[in-house]
Amino acid sequence: MIAKEDIRKEIRRAAAMVREKNPMAPSVTNTVTVNFVANAQLAVGGSAAMVYLPDEGEDMAGMGDAFYINMGTQFPVYAETLPRTAKALHERKKPWVLDPVGIGIGALRENLLCQFRSFPPSILRGNASEILAVAKLWKLVKETGGCGVRGVDSTDAVESAREAAIEIARCTGGAVAISGPTDLVTDGRLVVSSAGGSPFLSKITGAGCSLGGVMAVYATQTDPFCAALTGVLAYNLAGKRAEAEARGPGSFQMHFLDELYLATPEDIAGHPFEVESAQQEVENF
Amino acid sequence: MIAKEDIRKEIRRAAAMVREKNPMAPSVTNTVTVNFVANAQLAVGGSAAMVYLPDEGEDMAGMGDAFYINMGTQFPVYAETLPRTAKALHERKKPWVLDPVGIGIGALRENLLCQFRSFPPSILRGNASEILAVAKLWKLVKETGGCGVRGVDSTDAVESAREAAIEIARCTGGAVAISGPTDLVTDGRLVVSSAGGSPFLSKITGAGCSLGGVMAVYATQTDPFCAALTGVLAYNLAGKRAEAEARGPGSFQMHFLDELYLATPEDIAGHPFEVESAQQEVENF
Amino acid sequence: MIAKEDIRKEIRRAAAMVREKNPMAPSVTNTVTVNFVANAQLAVGGSAAMVYLPDEGEDMAGMGDAFYINMGTQFPVYAETLPRTAKALHERKKPWVLDPVGIGIGALRENLLCQFRSFPPSILRGNASEILAVAKLWKLVKETGGCGVRGVDSTDAVESAREAAIEIARCTGGAVAISGPTDLVTDGRLVVSSAGGSPFLSKITGAGCSLGGVMAVYATQTDPFCAALTGVLAYNLAGKRAEAEARGPGSFQMHFLDELYLATPEDIAGHPFEVESAQQEVENF
Repeated sequence: MIAKEDIRKEIRRAAAMVREKNPMAPSVTNTVTVNFVANAQLAVGGSAAMVYLPDEGEDMAGMGDAFYINMGTQFPVYAETLPRTAKALHERKKPWVLDPVGIGIGALRENLLCQFRSFPPSILRGNASEILAVAKLWKLVKETGGCGVRGVDSTDAVESAREAAIEIARCTGGAVAISGPTDLVTDGRLVVSSAGGSPFLSKITGAGCSLGGVMAVYATQTDPFCAALTGVLAYNLAGKRAEAEARGPGSFQMHFLDELYLATPEDIAGHPFEVESAQQEVENF
Repeated sequence: MIAKEDIRKEIRRAAAMVREKNPMAPSVTNTVTVNFVANAQLAVGGSAAMVYLPDEGEDMAGMGDAFYINMGTQFPVYAETLPRTAKALHERKKPWVLDPVGIGIGALRENLLCQFRSFPPSILRGNASEILAVAKLWKLVKETGGCGVRGVDSTDAVESAREAAIEIARCTGGAVAISGPTDLVTDGRLVVSSAGGSPFLSKITGAGCSLGGVMAVYATQTDPFCAALTGVLAYNLAGKRAEAEARGPGSFQMHFLDELYLATPEDIAGHPFEVESAQQEVENF
Repeated sequence: MIAKEDIRKEIRRAAAMVREKNPMAPSVTNTVTVNFVANAQLAVGGSAAMVYLPDEGEDMAGMGDAFYINMGTQFPVYAETLPRTAKALHERKKPWVLDPVGIGIGALRENLLCQFRSFPPSILRGNASEILAVAKLWKLVKETGGCGVRGVDSTDAVESAREAAIEIARCTGGAVAISGPTDLVTDGRLVVSSAGGSPFLSKITGAGCSLGGVMAVYATQTDPFCAALTGVLAYNLAGKRAEAEARGPGSFQMHFLDELYLATPEDIAGHPFEVESAQQEVENF
């Protein structure tokens, strides 16, 4: 198993490289939180560019070193934009992050998610309900009743999606991150957990979306597993620090962006996390 | 007439229930202020989900306990999304809030507003010019020259739309709220007025839009009249408190979200308002 | 040559008139920064209204006294909306600001920019790479290799686009503003430079976009050259003041909106700038 200290070292390196190189991670993302996604990407040292049209998605798949697709709001043109962009990313071997927001609303989302199985994301990020829903849609876990997605909220506990996350990571060859009070990140071999953050992160819109965008920024500089973990640690650290300064969700959001910006690579790599083997889960699965 | 103390009690109950139950009020809303709408809905204790596609509007009409439609920015697909969503809400008897922003711009808005007369909103919220324009469009008041909508701004005084608001409420069987220095809320029988707020509310974009979204959150727990009034009181209270802390519109918006979050059900129900009968207006109309 | 003091006087007048008249400058602008554009327009004293549909663009071209078109995010309907809006502005002789964000991404942007040559903007605002790209697209400068646009970022220095800006201004009969550490504004005869601002302006999304929107607000009250310069000075002043109060990009954005709001016409007109003749550049070009 990779030593914890090696993981820390790689996280510190990735966070430092992003600050040094200001890498661009373009997005097709929802209109609700698009501004916060871009500002979070800039705060950690990256650059942002958002597009909607099919040929623009393809072009940006080539121009960026990683990409972010968030399904939170769907426009008609996405029926063409998202598959073409995912295919272009796949062909160019560019890492990309998928945020499968709103599964179960309308017909297009499920249709697109099924197509993504052929061009899978390097990092799948969501709450427990969303991860479970993707695993069911991709037939990676047994169907055991309806999933607990409620609009954009999760009604399932993080732990309940642990096995689903491991299975997805093994299927895609990438990483899966489950957001919750304690976050889990897995590449199918290791499962890392990290607490921190703040209850205020669920009192502002876009904490999850912007985390996905930030993971894409880190994915320009390191492998999917470390990129996802670097994002999680940065968020848990900045969330905790911002909470200490906030009176409510308005001031929390302001402080959160400040703290994302102020966190050094050492701060981020030093935030607590635990590493376990995914093996046991697999045996029991 | 309902005693003022009974209204206060119901407002306190509605505000408390929202904090307890975290109810979802989905929206089809404009792209300019969508982030602020969601953050305001979260700050008062609700949950937000925004969609654009026709079948997604219908699905969310079923998933949420109330809905918010804001016409501020129009996409081509809205020609189908808005009527289908309003119809689904009507059939499922779900309360919904309509914000008729931008009447008079282009052809689609008026066309949609005319269709809404058959599936009327539980709460119509707007500035005086918008309320007057809807009343004229629905032939509820006599046409007396052009209405004073200027883009998204009002050029009419709140009082000038009082009778139009009462007529609309009687026509829809719901409530109408007119925003201005002193807000009016009517269900066609009572007219409640409440002052407070802040001039800064018109120096940030989305104060009205987010109020509409917050009314939809409260409409998941109480009748349209009390839901509209709870929103108005929460905004007048939070606006007043935030102004005392703000240096300009940037800090005002931050403090405003904090104060929305910090206001207790008792605070909200305790904000001053006046109740009158709508009878006199009707006789003189 | 116009005396510097006359320019200052006109800037002071334009800034004061905007505060007095609250003029509306509608926009077709990108979804990433649309909220910040509107809030900045409101902070300086103007009013905002954003639209997407072709007939709404035409209608707003008539209702506003100036207009803002930002190409940052493209929807399919823009293929019709943008040319029809630009044509309507041209026919009504309304001043408008063009922000050519994202040149080189997909096919639509270049197609639209080529069409705009027939209905040219009163003010073209962009970073150095964008100004160079427009000049090349309009065949105003010799093609000397690919331009340095990277998504929405500039890879060229402001000075490198000086001649291109002068040529564009002479071609359009309007003004061109290049944003960077030191901003340049030219009407083809004079070149004004102004420093100030803050490195934080590139750590938040939308500084350039919102500056374009603010220039459109000022263009309702003065000529394109002075409108562009008033915007630049207001931004350089507010950016500098906000930086002194900020801990990071979150607090910077809040303070920046406050400082835009608090800056008096005298403050804005008093911010340092240098005036030169554009003649020399032309001779050497």
